[in-house]
Amino acid sequence: EQEDTDDGQSLVFADLTPEEMAQVVRYLQGNLGVQLVDASRAKPSDNCIASVDLQVPAKAEVLRFLDGGGARPPREALAVLYFGNQPDPNITEYVVGPLPTPAYHRDVTVQKYRGKVPYHRRPVTGKEYMDINALIQQELRKAPRFLATCCESDGTDLAILTTAPRGFKSGDRATWFVLFHSMAGTGYYLLPVGLEVLVEHRDLRVSHWQLRQVFYNGRYFASMGVLEEAFVASLLEVVRIPKPQTEAVLGSMRPQRPPGSPGPLQYEPQGPRYSIRGNRVTFQGWSIAFGMNPNSGPRLFDIRYRGERIVYELSLQEALALYGSNCPGGMLTRYLDGSFGIGRFAYELVRGLDCPYTATYVDRHYLAESETPKTNQNSLCIFEHDAALPLRRHFSDSQSLYYGGLRKNTLVIRAISTLINYDYIWDFMFHGSGAVEVRVHATGYISSSFLHGQGTDYGNRVGPHTLGTMHLHHIHYKVDLDVDGQLNSLETQDMAYKIVKEPWSMQNTIERLYLRRERLEREDKAAFLLNTPMPRYLSFASPNPNKWGHPRSYRIQITSFAGEHLPASSSMERSISWGRYQLAVTRRKEEEPTSTSIYNQNDPWTPTVAFADFIDNETITNEDLVAWISVGFLHVPHAEDVPNTVTVGNGVGFFLRPYNYFDEDPSVDSPDSIYFSSE
Amino acid sequence: EQEDTDDGQSLVFADLTPEEMAQVVRYLQGNLGVQLVDASRAKPSDNCIASVDLQVPAKAEVLRFLDGGGARPPREALAVLYFGNQPDPNITEYVVGPLPTPAYHRDVTVQKYRGKVPYHRRPVTGKEYMDINALIQQELRKAPRFLATCCESDGTDLAILTTAPRGFKSGDRATWFVLFHSMAGTGYYLLPVGLEVLVEHRDLRVSHWQLRQVFYNGRYFASMGVLEEAFVASLLEVVRIPKPQTEAVLGSMRPQRPPGSPGPLQYEPQGPRYSIRGNRVTFQGWSIAFGMNPNSGPRLFDIRYRGERIVYELSLQEALALYGSNCPGGMLTRYLDGSFGIGRFAYELVRGLDCPYTATYVDRHYLAESETPKTNQNSLCIFEHDAALPLRRHFSDSQSLYYGGLRKNTLVIRAISTLINYDYIWDFMFHGSGAVEVRVHATGYISSSFLHGQGTDYGNRVGPHTLGTMHLHHIHYKVDLDVDGQLNSLETQDMAYKIVKEPWSMQNTIERLYLRRERLEREDKAAFLLNTPMPRYLSFASPNPNKWGHPRSYRIQITSFAGEHLPASSSMERSISWGRYQLAVTRRKEEEPTSTSIYNQNDPWTPTVAFADFIDNETITNEDLVAWISVGFLHVPHAEDVPNTVTVGNGVGFFLRPYNYFDEDPSVDSPDSIYFSSE
Ligand SMILES: [Ca+2]
Ligand SMILES: [Ca+2]
Ligand SMILES: [Ca+2]
Ligand SMILES: [Ca+2]
Ligand SMILES: [Cu+2]
Ligand SMILES: [Cu+2]
Repeated sequence: EQEDTDDGQSLVFADLTPEEMAQVVRYLQGNLGVQLVDASRAKPSDNCIASVDLQVPAKAEVLRFLDGGGARPPREALAVLYFGNQPDPNITEYVVGPLPTPAYHRDVTVQKYRGKVPYHRRPVTGKEYMDINALIQQELRKAPRFLATCCESDGTDLAILTTAPRGFKSGDRATWFVLFHSMAGTGYYLLPVGLEVLVEHRDLRVSHWQLRQVFYNGRYFASMGVLEEAFVASLLEVVRIPKPQTEAVLGSMRPQRPPGSPGPLQYEPQGPRYSIRGNRVTFQGWSIAFGMNPNSGPRLFDIRYRGERIVYELSLQEALALYGSNCPGGMLTRYLDGSFGIGRFAYELVRGLDCPYTATYVDRHYLAESETPKTNQNSLCIFEHDAALPLRRHFSDSQSLYYGGLRKNTLVIRAISTLINYDYIWDFMFHGSGAVEVRVHATGYISSSFLHGQGTDYGNRVGPHTLGTMHLHHIHYKVDLDVDGQLNSLETQDMAYKIVKEPWSMQNTIERLYLRRERLEREDKAAFLLNTPMPRYLSFASPNPNKWGHPRSYRIQITSFAGEHLPASSSMERSISWGRYQLAVTRRKEEEPTSTSIYNQNDPWTPTVAFADFIDNETITNEDLVAWISVGFLHVPHAEDVPNTVTVGNGVGFFLRPYNYFDEDPSVDSPDSIYFSSE
Repeated sequence: EQEDTDDGQSLVFADLTPEEMAQVVRYLQGNLGVQLVDASRAKPSDNCIASVDLQVPAKAEVLRFLDGGGARPPREALAVLYFGNQPDPNITEYVVGPLPTPAYHRDVTVQKYRGKVPYHRRPVTGKEYMDINALIQQELRKAPRFLATCCESDGTDLAILTTAPRGFKSGDRATWFVLFHSMAGTGYYLLPVGLEVLVEHRDLRVSHWQLRQVFYNGRYFASMGVLEEAFVASLLEVVRIPKPQTEAVLGSMRPQRPPGSPGPLQYEPQGPRYSIRGNRVTFQGWSIAFGMNPNSGPRLFDIRYRGERIVYELSLQEALALYGSNCPGGMLTRYLDGSFGIGRFAYELVRGLDCPYTATYVDRHYLAESETPKTNQNSLCIFEHDAALPLRRHFSDSQSLYYGGLRKNTLVIRAISTLINYDYIWDFMFHGSGAVEVRVHATGYISSSFLHGQGTDYGNRVGPHTLGTMHLHHIHYKVDLDVDGQLNSLETQDMAYKIVKEPWSMQNTIERLYLRRERLEREDKAAFLLNTPMPRYLSFASPNPNKWGHPRSYRIQITSFAGEHLPASSSMERSISWGRYQLAVTRRKEEEPTSTSIYNQNDPWTPTVAFADFIDNETITNEDLVAWISVGFLHVPHAEDVPNTVTVGNGVGFFLRPYNYFDEDPSVDSPDSIYFSSE
């Protein structure tokens, strides 16, 4: 009864296998004509492979293959290289193919980004952080008496947390690092000691890096030496924080009670009702190709329901965390998690907690900052969930006694990314009503600043010296809906009242509710700024009617508690200009595959991709359209965010719901539906 | 480990037992000195008992008893009587006590409503509908040829659906009734034949009632006779609709496929972890007294977490459904479901579909329009649900390898009300984080109009002759939070940016995120109009700080997609003036127990309770406060609402979340929490 007729066609979207990654690495090592150093050891002045991922074939090509009986597109990889050891250091992106035995590589950088990508835009590698840490350690040794007093430390036991962006203008690479008491087995993020240091690491020669500023407890110093002098001269107000020793440290997740009796568990009397073949899962008429981009995270393709494609691509684009604080690291921080790696930091899921015991767990493989693939075992889970809610139901005792309905059983595809302190739970859910639900929950540790001065203007105190710093979580999705074909238009509907005479006596007035239908003709009309009113109904409509004459459509319904977008006056605003809009619908372009770039984090002042440029008032009627959706919330951490933010109330997302797409609710065909009557 | 130390104290909130109801009826029959007719047979010119429900004791009295060691308040009932057989017909409300053996009754009508309640405001009883139906049937016989042609009917097989309100000014009682093809075992609501009739039923003498207007297919007629004449003279455009015969009738819920293999089920390895004693349920530190008001539905009292009361009362107040259409019944309809009976129409729940098989099912008893109690068996369910999501979790591989978290297991209290065509699923959920979640989903049959003319200005066509009429669902809750005592203030927090020089070099600017904290001092400031911006954080704060110096608070977070409120120009707007506000916080008054009245439906032009009057700019700092919360959505029915509206995407609600109430997340104490590390 599963429509599992896909004959490996969806492998066109499949993430690279470890073997394919290895082949690409071997090819690059042999064919670039330059010396490559493994990224885990490479200095800024070396050449290295930053990442190898699937090069998703062009949509036209894929559709010719899937729908038109055309040839299978060649399988290709996208290799990102950091060329530090060249006269003009740069980042270069190659398409390498065909797999499994590469024979060509094509430099796509200029075509993709309309110019070369300067080297300074590259993400900071693990090796670069190690070198910075070494520098900081060396500098800390210049303030031994201060450190002993403030922190019961010689510096070597402190944890060092990066911030970003790293300056104020293109080319800058100077980062504030925040220092914490660290303790094995618990999150150091809640234990700032009050010390932060600004490291200049722009030069390709590590030996030229330097510590540029020091912050301690509200004051700034030129160096650790100056700080030590101030301390020795008793000119420094030191807040003595004992080194955490006990199990009861702030933020410990160790259970404080022995385990109790287990709560309700899920079982599948006749086994799973979904099936997984390669990168495709099928379930009650649904069929979805799934994968993970190492940087931007989950990506789904070719989402079909009952054989008809509804979504060509549904992919996470970016997760922004934008902070406020009265400490330098915190007040600057605007993390663009895609540049850290939302996909490759999606780790193994814990059975029975992160997903049900009964879930199917799937491995993912990444090649990032290395020459050998890394496997994140069981890092994606798929399961059917009983929502303990009717999908629909009606009980009648008027006229006749009957009851009908069915349970809401949902297919869930989940991954969880741990981005340093934070954990984002990415859910993609497929309902028996033909609706897709996309949801993200935030959990994990909050980020914090050392509490001093007017700190509570930026959050709440959550520990003896800990300020839980306020921040925004803003998250961006690309949704390339193809509703009954590629050519769609954007329709809106909303309500209004009209005051009219009642028609049967014309003596009284009625405030009569009516529907306002509109078709939005151009991109500028279809770009809805954050926190402004949006029509209550908004749908991708096909030119073809359903049985009742209405355009076959899917409706987009967003649940979000977004904060305010960064003011346009900010010199980095264009790099996150996707955040201006709660929803923007654009004409789909092969040249506009993503709303952001991993290079935006370290040069947000000259964004490599600026989403706002996509919105250039093209017509959007009967075109291949993409919906770009922002969701998020303002997070003011409070005592209950310790040890970890809870998911309750911290979830946002959106629905894609059939709207006159069918002739009736498709769940009438479900084998799960129940009916009985008094007859 | 359950804190089940309640020694029957919460019985002070318990719904009346059938025995208590019977005692009250017996007392009333013997002590009012008037002749009472059973409401199921009573004519408008008779006296009858409309309902008997618990008279909830005054809060001060209850708290003296629960917290102050005071005496148990006398147990009392509230009896509503329709006095049609009096010189001045009226509605009278008596408090009757003490139970179990009543000895007194007190007419509280004037005190409660500041005046007598005119008889014309009474809800329409089942008997009144029967008499109206008889009149309509008699009238239909005057158009036999028309009915045979339009509907293959002699009229007797048509279903008749009421609308409301019933006129345009106080005293009116003239109702449009909509006629449908009816078929046993399925919802007739989707099968309008195009005929609607206006019945005048104001006179207390049924014999004086009359049919005042007839609507058919876009035209109005003075009577059925005139309609028949027009038909016979071929002056009528008749839309012939065959009588539904087959199983494939529009809206059938009969499964179209044989049952498949069962989906995932829940089991409780060591049995339920919650316990129920009388009207109180306890679960992992939670303790809740539950009950049902026959009219307004679910009501919870004395919600405690870890022994501390958080909410004194959490109760549904009203559900409004406000329609648009180009047929008279539809364009007028503003159902106030409380006057129909949200509680007493909460019917038996179906095991394994409405709630899990493992749930505990509880009976409810009602005395309404009868002299004998009626039992709605298994009409409330309580269960623990595995949300298949972590409540919180963090995985670390930086510095040290560890993992901690716990599952999101939620206690759910649920009832489902069937209000003619519609089913509302009322959920109250209690989380391990100390948060309460309140949620309502809409399902069941849509209401519809006969499709004619510009019908699609009011919805979508969903069948051959069926217009799914657009409407609002707006729902109102009372939340008497008592956060760390009764004296609370309302605090808001929101974000803003300030452009400042970065403090370490003063050379660059930062758009610095900061927190704006405010205390709202007066009711007018704390009344937030629908669809206007509201501070992102809004909480009930106690004067007492938590460990970190912040006021112990609970935050209110609302998820709603509300439509536009009825314009103030409407002569009935004040009767639903609670709908003006997404949130309003008022000083709690014993004299303001509810935001509406069951008498508002039939005289909305002189509302018996007008919520807007509660907001009279009293100070709300350090007072006993109540939050009144509106949630809802605009529903434009579409093809997929047939047979029934699905719950996916049609849920709204709110959270009550601890906000610096504790010193850390209370789930750290949960026996469900899990931790492991590489050590
Ligand atoms: Ca464009
Ligand atoms: Ca598209
Ligand atoms: Ca007041
Ligand atoms: Ca209160
Ligand atoms: Cu957060
Ligand atoms: Cu509805």
